[in-house]
Amino acid sequence: MLGIFDSGIGGLTVVKAIEEAIPGISYVYLGDTARLPYGTKSAETISKYTTNALEFLSSKGATVPIVACHTASSMLLSNGAARKKIESMFQNEHMYNVATSAILEAKDKTKNKKIGILGTSATIRSHAYENALHEFSITSVAASVLVSLAEEDFSDRKYSGPILNEILKPFITNNVDTVILACTHFPILANSIRAILGANIELIDPGMALAKCLATKKNILKKGAGVIYATDIPEDFEERSSRFLGRNIHVKAV
Amino acid sequence: MLGIFDSGIGGLTVVKAIEEAIPGISYVYLGDTARLPYGTKSAETISKYTTNALEFLSSKGATVPIVACHTASSMLLSNGAARKKIESMFQNEHMYNVATSAILEAKDKTKNKKIGILGTSATIRSHAYENALHEFSITSVAASVLVSLAEEDFSDRKYSGPILNEILKPFITNNVDTVILACTHFPILANSIRAILGANIELIDPGMALAKCLATKKNILKKGAGVIYATDIPEDFEERSSRFLGRNIHVKAV
Repeated sequence: MLGIFDSGIGGLTVVKAIEEAIPGISYVYLGDTARLPYGTKSAETISKYTTNALEFLSSKGATVPIVACHTASSMLLSNGAARKKIESMFQNEHMYNVATSAILEAKDKTKNKKIGILGTSATIRSHAYENALHEFSITSVAASVLVSLAEEDFSDRKYSGPILNEILKPFITNNVDTVILACTHFPILANSIRAILGANIELIDPGMALAKCLATKKNILKKGAGVIYATDIPEDFEERSSRFLGRNIHVKAV
Repeated sequence: MLGIFDSGIGGLTVVKAIEEAIPGISYVYLGDTARLPYGTKSAETISKYTTNALEFLSSKGATVPIVACHTASSMLLSNGAARKKIESMFQNEHMYNVATSAILEAKDKTKNKKIGILGTSATIRSHAYENALHEFSITSVAASVLVSLAEEDFSDRKYSGPILNEILKPFITNNVDTVILACTHFPILANSIRAILGANIELIDPGMALAKCLATKKNILKKGAGVIYATDIPEDFEERSSRFLGRNIHVKAV
């Protein structure tokens, strides 16, 4: 069974991509709503919270760890000790994370070798994507504000337009041909972002990239139900889930 | 010495108001950046975090507790047990909080008895302001997104305008004559908000209201320096402080 972790509700965009790629797959999900957002926290704090969350998922029967949070994924790219600790919790089963999936897809898609990274402050500050893509020309933009716009239903261009115009400028100036949406919330804004960047810039949705990888490993996956937990205010999580997952869900309190 | 607590950097707008009203006052401040924002958390979680934070300030020598966080203040208005616990930590010294100060000022300022509350989700969900102002006609609006706009420098109307136009509509429709900026970040957006609401609607800045109350109790206050702590990423706190406090500061890690 998949154990999918995110700091909050955003990881449901990853669940949505996985459900579309592998219908009827069994998983347990944890949104760490009591401590979100991770995007403003230090590497040490993020490492501690991530390990705690995956311990919880393991205790609920998860056998395949999936890190759907970009901030946590970025930390894991450069923190081998945390990665090992988590994989040993899961009998050394391979751990999937959105950052690695997005990086592989971006390498495949770029033609001019100029890649843009749009993430939260912590993701950008970690330089994890830049380090993993060191042979490419990288333009990184930190934009934690987009998390709020997605969560509070201001993703439509009539609200988000002026802010996105400002935020996305460096990608256009630097002539990137591929942009990684390096936060689980950003696929919600994909239409508005695409309208500003134009059709010649490829947008990478890391949830979809991860789902594609998983779909090739169907033998390790079980069919069954999805169970969703939140560490705080599950009813708030339920309310917003349709925007992220495309349907209403029941959310259990931890 | 004042012990001023907020979930993050926003409380520096309250410090600014206090410093302007009582120059050279001695204080210790804690921004709980490791666990912000409180606005998305449950009442139980907020109560636990608030008590922890004030214990820390007491351990640093604070004798007068000041809650600069609206989410925490709203919780305290309806949670007598938490209030007592905190006041007993401070030898039953009177505790100041931004919500109570704002409520007193709004009562004084409104003429048509129609008051608007602009706050984070948790502040609005707590109904603390509505309960405290039950004899008035209250229009409550939850807008956590404005925290991000203030923190990431999108408070200027050219960015925040379309979002504020939508958010502020209910105040205009319901003909309120007074609006409480019930989040420490919102005074940063005051000019943009005033431009949309017009000069006939009075904006209440709770930090300034609290500073006015404090200035009448100068006998319990000491002159001296201000010391500022953050529970995570003090350097990030330092970077943004000028927007909130109007000057650069040194921030200590807890």
